[in-house]
Amino acid sequence: MEKILIKNGKVLLFENNDVIIKNRDILVEEGKITKIEEKIPNSPEYHLIDAQNQIVMPGLINTHAHIPMSIFRETSEGVSLNEWLNNRIWPIEDRLTKQDIYNASMLSLIEMISTGTTCINDHYFMSEQIREAVRKLKVRAVLTRVIMDVDNNLQERIDEFKSFYETRLPDEDLITYSVAPHGLYTCTDKALQASANLARQYNLPIHIHFLESIDEIDDIKKLHGKRAIEVLKQYFNGIHTVLAHGVKLDDEDIKVLKTMDCGIAHNPISNLRLGCKIADTTRYLQEGINVALGTDGQGSGSNLDMFEAMRIACLIQGGIHENEARITAKEAIYMATINGAKLLGLNTKIGSIEVGKDADIILVDITKNLDNIIMYPNSNEVANLVYNTTGRNVTTTIVKGNVLMENRIIKGVDVNEIIKSAENIIK
Amino acid sequence: MEKILIKNGKVLLFENNDVIIKNRDILVEEGKITKIEEKIPNSPEYHLIDAQNQIVMPGLINTHAHIPMSIFRETSEGVSLNEWLNNRIWPIEDRLTKQDIYNASMLSLIEMISTGTTCINDHYFMSEQIREAVRKLKVRAVLTRVIMDVDNNLQERIDEFKSFYETRLPDEDLITYSVAPHGLYTCTDKALQASANLARQYNLPIHIHFLESIDEIDDIKKLHGKRAIEVLKQYFNGIHTVLAHGVKLDDEDIKVLKTMDCGIAHNPISNLRLGCKIADTTRYLQEGINVALGTDGQGSGSNLDMFEAMRIACLIQGGIHENEARITAKEAIYMATINGAKLLGLNTKIGSIEVGKDADIILVDITKNLDNIIMYPNSNEVANLVYNTTGRNVTTTIVKGNVLMENRIIKGVDVNEIIKSAENIIK
Repeated sequence: MEKILIKNGKVLLFENNDVIIKNRDILVEEGKITKIEEKIPNSPEYHLIDAQNQIVMPGLINTHAHIPMSIFRETSEGVSLNEWLNNRIWPIEDRLTKQDIYNASMLSLIEMISTGTTCINDHYFMSEQIREAVRKLKVRAVLTRVIMDVDNNLQERIDEFKSFYETRLPDEDLITYSVAPHGLYTCTDKALQASANLARQYNLPIHIHFLESIDEIDDIKKLHGKRAIEVLKQYFNGIHTVLAHGVKLDDEDIKVLKTMDCGIAHNPISNLRLGCKIADTTRYLQEGINVALGTDGQGSGSNLDMFEAMRIACLIQGGIHENEARITAKEAIYMATINGAKLLGLNTKIGSIEVGKDADIILVDITKNLDNIIMYPNSNEVANLVYNTTGRNVTTTIVKGNVLMENRIIKGVDVNEIIKSAENIIK
Repeated sequence: MEKILIKNGKVLLFENNDVIIKNRDILVEEGKITKIEEKIPNSPEYHLIDAQNQIVMPGLINTHAHIPMSIFRETSEGVSLNEWLNNRIWPIEDRLTKQDIYNASMLSLIEMISTGTTCINDHYFMSEQIREAVRKLKVRAVLTRVIMDVDNNLQERIDEFKSFYETRLPDEDLITYSVAPHGLYTCTDKALQASANLARQYNLPIHIHFLESIDEIDDIKKLHGKRAIEVLKQYFNGIHTVLAHGVKLDDEDIKVLKTMDCGIAHNPISNLRLGCKIADTTRYLQEGINVALGTDGQGSGSNLDMFEAMRIACLIQGGIHENEARITAKEAIYMATINGAKLLGLNTKIGSIEVGKDADIILVDITKNLDNIIMYPNSNEVANLVYNTTGRNVTTTIVKGNVLMENRIIKGVDVNEIIKSAENIIK
């Protein structure tokens, strides 16, 4: 495996409970960060990456997505949720082939690499083809096969999950797994129990939609005879759990969540586009609940650009905290990096630039030119990353020492071909 | 003046109360749009602009900004409003030279041109230098000299405004003017009366901050002995008025505003960053109040990218309208174009691509490539403009037939030099 020297960058580090940007060189060996020093001399054996005029930061971690849903981008605009699902999503999902899922996934993974995300937590079906795309492009991913039993096919879903999980490759450590019951309103008690059993049997986390919209609250009560939080605790207490959304948490919910091994994957853009209002992430963090960031699928989340997610996550807190302290750009950076790593149980490996961690690193261009004029004068580099940067500023994306994109070129990928294949699916 | 042929573009038009995108060529003569047809033959006398793979749309209109405030970008992050004003804004504003204002304005105008805004409504002081920069870069602007009398210098302010207005050039129709009392909480009755007098004397619109934050409500009552809306009506009834912000409107306010000749310049990003909560623009539009878009100064508004403003304006309505109809991408496009033109009293000239209107036109790149992968598949071109586009996609900016930027090059401008000059101001 090649050694990489990232030279002359402004490196974003977490030190003393703060986000610090320092001029540092970084050495990567065997996929790991082995040195972070002021000057590391170059050597012919190194793959040299010049990070002049660039911020060098941890790869972003998208903690809730539906990888193949790239094909549903901007299909929900101006139609009701029911019309959207009935006329646009379900008829297409119903006829998706394995090749379609692969092609749609390729587009999302390219989108993710090109916007600086190095790890993605998926929640979908036809998982074999998603895994094939993930392997092809060498990103980091947490994969699953979603379990729900609205169609009474629970055993089939469980078997699919098992067969998917059991055909994993040994030592393929870029891919990890979760057990993913769809949601408390789409899973019977039987399905939740089966999911908990699988999670315990394989020692895997749970990844579940939780209190995204107000409608769920009643639906869950009807289906299970008790409040959502009680159902959650009944089945998943003691299991590490990723709660996607968590928009509608009340005092009691927060009290219980604090006693559980769980955290929130906050998807601000999707929440807003679906009219679900605003999750009080400022409070969740104050209460000590881990909050990370996600994009959700492109059908509701627009795109996979986590810089946009960071920006919106910060901004919208000013929509519910009037003249009050609320999360800042620094917290948004945490949410998109180290908090995400914790939420996915990967924080010993990724989420920060530290000696000993895997080299999941991105470079973000801040050159003083016309494209970046919205960053200057740059009085606060951390705030600038959140408020005036998009994924398009990312020049280089590295996952475990593999350079997936360098100077905005993803080698071996014909972007036009990938777009065309995805377009053909929804024609 | 050169004739321009914009060929092979996808042209965004307003037809039958809808936003339509059609393949059209556009001919520009003497600064005006003279033809919009399926195929207009090229001729050697034309400056040919190839719009293949681009959306051709009306230049965006920023209805509330403080042009020289580029230098305060990201200075407010993580500090209280008081600390920000006392330690960062006022000490610097106090020592700004004329050259500083010119340099800071140049940066904002370049920022505006490069992100597709062709017209900007300013609200600041040292207006001569702002006008000098506006003339130099040939953008369209509504200029003023802000009036306030917290420092008991009303007559001086009025004289400054008059001298500024009266030294305007004849036939300089890219620059128009407004009378700008700062706000109802920073102007005594005397200052408001003087502003109304000036507006009537010169037949100019008013441009004023109005109900941006909750604190204002009491402050205005204390200063004027009545509610904000009553003060507004007392002085400005019958005068066309641009109300910046209008976040805190109640039923009574809306009822009165509907009887007045006014509209709202909505600044979503600034409102959120200052913790002012969310203006109910969905309702304002339903009630028939004109709502346009602005960025506010970069100190609170991050940047002048109106695509970002459109996106956030749409998204945040989902933060207050749960499971309800609310403004869509189409309305955001209106807000940033034709509604803005109406608000500034310029809608017979600009705001849409129509034969007879001035050629204030921008081209937005949607080429299928890595930079634009977040747009594809593209099931809804209008939604894509709002949700997956930034000002960086703008390749070409034309104001009244002058090509200010072409293929992302602004001729005669050294961007690096302009950034350096702005940086020097806040060193």
